[in-house]
Amino acid sequence: MFKIISKSSRSKARAGKLKTPHGTIDTPAFMPVGTQGAVKAATWQQVKDIGAQMILSNTYHLYLRPGIKVIKKAGGLHKFIGWDGPILTDSGGYQVFSLAKLRKINDEGVTFNSHIDGSEHLLTPEKVVEIQSIFGSDIMMPLDECVAYPSTKAESEKAVKRTTRWAKRSKEAFLTPSFGHPSPQSGEGNKRGEVLFGIVQGGMFKDLRKRSAEEIRALDFPGYGIGGLSVGEPKDLMIKMLEVSTDNLEYEKSKHLMGVGFPEDIMEAVKFGIDLFDCVIPTRLARHGAFLTKEGKEIIRNAKFASDFTPLDKDCDCYACKNFTKAYIRHLFIAKEILPLTLMTIHNLRFIIRLMEEIREKIKNGLI
Amino acid sequence: MFKIISKSSRSKARAGKLKTPHGTIDTPAFMPVGTQGAVKAATWQQVKDIGAQMILSNTYHLYLRPGIKVIKKAGGLHKFIGWDGPILTDSGGYQVFSLAKLRKINDEGVTFNSHIDGSEHLLTPEKVVEIQSIFGSDIMMPLDECVAYPSTKAESEKAVKRTTRWAKRSKEAFLTPSFGHPSPQSGEGNKRGEVLFGIVQGGMFKDLRKRSAEEIRALDFPGYGIGGLSVGEPKDLMIKMLEVSTDNLEYEKSKHLMGVGFPEDIMEAVKFGIDLFDCVIPTRLARHGAFLTKEGKEIIRNAKFASDFTPLDKDCDCYACKNFTKAYIRHLFIAKEILPLTLMTIHNLRFIIRLMEEIREKIKNGLI
Repeated sequence: MFKIISKSSRSKARAGKLKTPHGTIDTPAFMPVGTQGAVKAATWQQVKDIGAQMILSNTYHLYLRPGIKVIKKAGGLHKFIGWDGPILTDSGGYQVFSLAKLRKINDEGVTFNSHIDGSEHLLTPEKVVEIQSIFGSDIMMPLDECVAYPSTKAESEKAVKRTTRWAKRSKEAFLTPSFGHPSPQSGEGNKRGEVLFGIVQGGMFKDLRKRSAEEIRALDFPGYGIGGLSVGEPKDLMIKMLEVSTDNLEYEKSKHLMGVGFPEDIMEAVKFGIDLFDCVIPTRLARHGAFLTKEGKEIIRNAKFASDFTPLDKDCDCYACKNFTKAYIRHLFIAKEILPLTLMTIHNLRFIIRLMEEIREKIKNGLI
Repeated sequence: MFKIISKSSRSKARAGKLKTPHGTIDTPAFMPVGTQGAVKAATWQQVKDIGAQMILSNTYHLYLRPGIKVIKKAGGLHKFIGWDGPILTDSGGYQVFSLAKLRKINDEGVTFNSHIDGSEHLLTPEKVVEIQSIFGSDIMMPLDECVAYPSTKAESEKAVKRTTRWAKRSKEAFLTPSFGHPSPQSGEGNKRGEVLFGIVQGGMFKDLRKRSAEEIRALDFPGYGIGGLSVGEPKDLMIKMLEVSTDNLEYEKSKHLMGVGFPEDIMEAVKFGIDLFDCVIPTRLARHGAFLTKEGKEIIRNAKFASDFTPLDKDCDCYACKNFTKAYIRHLFIAKEILPLTLMTIHNLRFIIRLMEEIREKIKNGLI
C-alpha cells in the first residue's frame, strides 16, 4: 500500500505514494481535519481546490453524533459526508481523554459520558474497529491509551502495556470476517483494501518509546500512528521521542504523526520518516482570525491591515489570496461575517498543503 | 440602459436587459444581498455559480464600517469587496429607521447614532449620493423617508413630500461634477454610466402612492425603486399599492421592488412590471436552518430528515443538492458546523435565481 519513490540521503525523509481504496496520495501529506464530518467553514470543493488529497475524521464525534446507525444507512462515511477521497479515522481514544466526562478506564475498554448529552458509552478495542469498519475508513486506528503530559514513568509504562494488549485485540477484531476485512491468511485477502495501523505510545521516556515500538512492530501492522506527542512537551523532547519511536519501526512502512501540524514541526518530523500529518490548528487559527505566512502568524484584526489592499500572503495561490485583500477580510472579520472564516481557512490549509508540496520537491531534489 | 426584449400580453410583465457599467443583466432579476460587502456565508464564486448576476449592498452599513475612506482608498466598492459584477446600493435610509438609535429627522436630513458604537452621524440627500459615488455603485438610490406600517395618512403624506424634496436634491447632487457624474446637459454625458434611481413612497394610501409616483416621475430618473412595501401589511394591500405605483410610472423604465423576495411575492410583482428584487430572507432562512422547496419552507433540524439521504430539493442543480443529503446537512446543522449555513445559503439563493430564470422563460413564452 505504501511505495517510497524518493529517499533522502541526509535523513530518513522520503517521498512516497500511499494507496488506499479511495485513491493514491502523495506523501508526506497533510490531512485537513473534518472532526464532525466536515472541515470547519469549508466545502469539500474548496478542500480539493487547495490540493488536499486525504482527510482525517474523528471516530469519537461521529460515533456520538450522528451515530453509526445513520452512517451505516448512508452506506458508510464517504457517502454520508460526500467526500470521495481517502479518509483516515482516529480511534476516538484521544477525545475520550480530552473531551468526555467521568471516564473509567480498565482493561476491557473505556467507559465515558458523552460531552453532548451525558449519555454513558463503553468503547472497547473491538467496538472501535467495528465503528471504523462501518465507516469504511481507508485507514483505521486502534484504541490506545495516551497519557497526559507530564506523566510518571509508571503511568506511561502502564499505558504502553495496555496499548499493546489493545492493539492485539484490535487486530483480531479487524480480521473478524463480519467486519468486512477477511484475514489475508484465509486466502480471501482484504478485498476492500482498508487497513488498520498500529499506534506507538511511550510517553516521554526513551526506553518506553522503544518498547512500545517493538511490541507494536511485532504485531505486523501495515503502517503506524505515532501517538502521545505534541501534548505540551518541549519541542526538543518531542523530536527525541519521535526519533526513538521511528528508529524502532520498519523504515518501509508508512507513519502518521498524530495531531501534529505546525509548519516547523512538520519540517522537522519528515526527517524522521513521517509520511502523514493532521492538525486542527490551521483551521482553528483561521476561525480565530489568524493567518499563516512564511514570516509567521498574523492577526487579521490588527489595525495595520485596515487599509492594506494586498493579499494575506503575496506568494499564495489560494482563492482567498488571488481575489481578496487583507483590508476586506479584516473588515468582514470585525463585522462578524462568516465569509472571512472560510477565506482564512482556505488560505491556512493551502499554506500547509503548499509546504507539503515543497517538502516533497525538496526530498526529490535531495535538499532535505 | 434598460431594454425590454419580451412583453407579456396578459400583464405588465416583461423580460429585459439592464445595462450597467459592470455588465448587462437579464431581468426580472433577483439580487442577493451583501449587507456588509459579502453575501453572508457564501463566496462570490458560489454567488456566481448559482447564476446571480447583480448584488445589492447596504450604504448604511458600509458607510459606518469600514467607512468611505477605506473604500475610496481601495478604488471603490467593487474593488474593495472583489465583486466585478453590477452593484445596486440602497440609500441607507431604511436602515437608519430600522437599526439606528436616537434618530432625528428634519428637512436637512437624518441625524442618528450608529448601532455599532453610538457615534453620531448626519445623512443628507447630498451625502448619500456622495457616498454611493465613492462606492462607484452601478445603481444608486436617493435618501427617502419610509414610514412604518401602519402609519396615518398625515404621516405618510409628510414622508411623500419630503421624499420628493430629497429626490430633487439627490439628483442635483448626482449631477455635481465633483461626484463624477457630469450632467448629460453639459455635453459630457455620464462617462461612468452609473445611474441614480428615484424612489416612490406613499404608505398604504392609493392617492399618496399616485402622487409620489407622479412627483418622482416628473424628475426624470432613469429607473425607480418602489419603497415602503412588504413592511408588515397584508399581501393584497401590498399588491394594490404596487399596482398604483407602477401604473403612474413609465412602463419602459426599469423598476426595483425594494426588499421584496418571497417567491410568491416575486411571482405576483413581475405582473406589475417589476424588474429587480432583493431580499435577505433566502440567506437569513438558510442560516436559521430553513430551506426552500416548491412545496414550501422546510426546517432541516426536523427529525424526519435524520436518515433522509436525498437532496434538499430533488429538482435543484445547486452544489448543495448535487453533492449532499438532508441527513448530512441536518447532522452538521445540529453539530453547529459552519458548512450547513453555506450549503443552505447556496441552495436558497439558487432556488430564487431558478425561479427568476423560469419567470423570464414564461414571460418569453407568453405564460405570465
